[in-house]
Amino acid sequence: MNAEPVVDHLLQRHDAVLDRLTAFLRLPSVSTDPAYAEGMAATRAFLLDWLAEIGLSDVQLLDGGGHPAVYGAWLGAPGAPTIIVYGHYDVQPPDPLALWRTPPFEPTIQGGRLHARGASDVKGSTTIAIETVAGFLAVHGGCPVNIKLFLEGEEETGSPSLREIVHRYGTLLQADAMISADGGRASPTEPTINVGARGLAKLELIVRSAEKEMHSGRYGGAVRNALHELAAIIASLHDANGAIAVPALMEALPPPSAQDRRDAAALPFDEAAFVADVGGIAAGEPGYSLRERLTLRPAIDVNGMWGGYTGAGSKTVIPDEARAKVTIRLAPGQDPEQAIQALQDHIRSVARPGVRIAFAGIGGGSPASTLAGHHPLVQAATRVLQRVWQRDPVHVRLGATVPITAIFKELLGMDTLMFGLNLPDEDVHAPNEFFHLDSIALGLRSWPLLLQELAIFAPEEFRAKG
Amino acid sequence: MNAEPVVDHLLQRHDAVLDRLTAFLRLPSVSTDPAYAEGMAATRAFLLDWLAEIGLSDVQLLDGGGHPAVYGAWLGAPGAPTIIVYGHYDVQPPDPLALWRTPPFEPTIQGGRLHARGASDVKGSTTIAIETVAGFLAVHGGCPVNIKLFLEGEEETGSPSLREIVHRYGTLLQADAMISADGGRASPTEPTINVGARGLAKLELIVRSAEKEMHSGRYGGAVRNALHELAAIIASLHDANGAIAVPALMEALPPPSAQDRRDAAALPFDEAAFVADVGGIAAGEPGYSLRERLTLRPAIDVNGMWGGYTGAGSKTVIPDEARAKVTIRLAPGQDPEQAIQALQDHIRSVARPGVRIAFAGIGGGSPASTLAGHHPLVQAATRVLQRVWQRDPVHVRLGATVPITAIFKELLGMDTLMFGLNLPDEDVHAPNEFFHLDSIALGLRSWPLLLQELAIFAPEEFRAKG
Repeated sequence: MNAEPVVDHLLQRHDAVLDRLTAFLRLPSVSTDPAYAEGMAATRAFLLDWLAEIGLSDVQLLDGGGHPAVYGAWLGAPGAPTIIVYGHYDVQPPDPLALWRTPPFEPTIQGGRLHARGASDVKGSTTIAIETVAGFLAVHGGCPVNIKLFLEGEEETGSPSLREIVHRYGTLLQADAMISADGGRASPTEPTINVGARGLAKLELIVRSAEKEMHSGRYGGAVRNALHELAAIIASLHDANGAIAVPALMEALPPPSAQDRRDAAALPFDEAAFVADVGGIAAGEPGYSLRERLTLRPAIDVNGMWGGYTGAGSKTVIPDEARAKVTIRLAPGQDPEQAIQALQDHIRSVARPGVRIAFAGIGGGSPASTLAGHHPLVQAATRVLQRVWQRDPVHVRLGATVPITAIFKELLGMDTLMFGLNLPDEDVHAPNEFFHLDSIALGLRSWPLLLQELAIFAPEEFRAKG
Repeated sequence: MNAEPVVDHLLQRHDAVLDRLTAFLRLPSVSTDPAYAEGMAATRAFLLDWLAEIGLSDVQLLDGGGHPAVYGAWLGAPGAPTIIVYGHYDVQPPDPLALWRTPPFEPTIQGGRLHARGASDVKGSTTIAIETVAGFLAVHGGCPVNIKLFLEGEEETGSPSLREIVHRYGTLLQADAMISADGGRASPTEPTINVGARGLAKLELIVRSAEKEMHSGRYGGAVRNALHELAAIIASLHDANGAIAVPALMEALPPPSAQDRRDAAALPFDEAAFVADVGGIAAGEPGYSLRERLTLRPAIDVNGMWGGYTGAGSKTVIPDEARAKVTIRLAPGQDPEQAIQALQDHIRSVARPGVRIAFAGIGGGSPASTLAGHHPLVQAATRVLQRVWQRDPVHVRLGATVPITAIFKELLGMDTLMFGLNLPDEDVHAPNEFFHLDSIALGLRSWPLLLQELAIFAPEEFRAKG
């Protein structure tokens, strides 16, 4: 089945695709905050209509106890591989709202950029994936491979009910491989293939130094302050270089492979510009390039920290409680549970006598993922990118985490190719997130070719070489 | 003029006094938060009515550009000393609201305690002071001394416009000494005289590590995180004992006097019970008793700290900005501006290269205050307490700060006796603040005697011995 007429058809429909993406972005589908429950439901309804409209069958919600996933299938290619096409419809919270130059849920085009929460992560690429399937069905009345569209609703919260969804709908989700709209490009000027991603583990740390808030005039100088104690603990997690200073975490970590280090060096990467783009300060583990730190080495980050009086003016209290949300980006080979345990052990060991330590929000972690270079998914992607870019793609790893990849590998035995169009400069998870408009056309040219290339392989080849 | 009939009159009116205090407490006079502007205005109207009703003259607001003070006078005792009677009508914010067992602005009596925000700090003692003046005017048609009632509205925010009020109304506020309803008792079982208080200085620290929030998958492990940098700075302020670790601040500090150390040792003080009362952890400067740490030595406390994502669920960001509100309780002899400068210098010196440091909210500081033992205010208070308690009072210093004392000394040359009734266990500035109900009767017995004893001195004696 020839992809070229599908590409032509989709490029002619470019503005209609953009309109559909804009409507998708208007829906405030923030999964982490119950205040957005209505936006989540409206987004699911929007997707159910869309998938039915393009001709998928068995369109339904897959409920695992949290925000359900949206599913639809086209299974009319007997003998051809069955491919799960993955995207997610949830987005990060828009906070801090005050820093957005345009409203986060009113998509706005400025200077070749489509600004909106979720434009880059990952409604843009998800829309390209859905439109690709729609294009094949419209032009050929069918696809080169069997398609199971799976659109998750909890990617941004660490996919807490994904395992339950896979358990409940295991038969429905059987397939030979997955291609994901999440996990984007590493460079705007070089074709790249994602062959892996760091893992993720998280916890919330609660530090208590007393049973109630105290007046700093009455108690100041004579008792522990929960904020001081939290600060001392957080300060102990890194050394002066910004390298992780939790020995048990680093000692259990295998060294990066020589191939991984060669691949990391292959991508042209302007370290200074990468850091300058966010006005940041380069830091981290000595002995590794910045790109290696980002993809082959772990990172501990405090994502939020709070305690005491944070309103207007001043309040002279000694807080009794302080909290921090902490995540670990896991390097290849690191076990999430072991890493979280090492972090907890470290925190308990540095906490001063009498300071009460508690943890919450643990779970939903996933290890790093890796795709072998000779895998059919990598071969197919290589041929697509050679054709579109007229040169060989570079193998890269993601610093970010796509838990779905690890879970589908573990529970269903299938590998994932990340084939998103998003680029590193698009301010994902931050104010003024955007998607480069020209990525839409690039995606509409590449995705149909990928489905065509995947059809060349026999179903069993995807698993044999996994 | 005999105080005894006034005491009898006031004790008969005990329940009416309690009713008036309850009405005072219902008014939400939070000075630090503009959301309470209406409550502040209602409280001023309430006080203006009250002072006029008891027979004071020249009742008015004294406006210094912030929340005005409320003023009223009785000046019918020519030749007698003129005494400013000080109280404040503003209160701390009620946050965290969820921890209150009864609503903060619905006064509730339980087990001999009157619960409400401001009950202890300091509407309870302010009410006793006003009722004392009212009692003399009702019973004798006059007071033993000339009275200028001065009720501040910005005590809880460090008295930012108090200097301007004193500048604008300097003539009106001329007096020989001040007695203050703020600054309470040190013990429920021993009579005590406050002969001093620590000072206060503050700043807000803003730490920036980038120009925008970053995705921890894209940048984690390769850039500075503002929360890590803030934590490192805060952790550097104290050593493992909890003692201040800002050398420039401690080196400029004079050692406590031998008399101060003897006085600190004179009050029976159960250190373990004091700390256990709040479920706290004892800490601080080695070589000093807990009571000395609280009154004769400085303290640095972070009152609030925040940055990044603090909502429900998780958000994998690397924050670009983090903030902390910091106050210093100043020991006798420490200069507020010098102390804040030493703190700023220290913070800049420990901040890592590239980390941007900014400060806000500086100003309104005041040094520690001290009242000599032979001062007429101390002599008068000593005689009152000997009479009420049938034994000699102990000299104590406050760990908390009453900026008014320092400002009135500096600008108007007058000394202050703190004669509040509040006790250390009353959870001031914290949820479930309360006032021991039996302090009302004790106050109504003591305050009239104090006015009578002050009348024994010639006006010039208050200044000669200051």
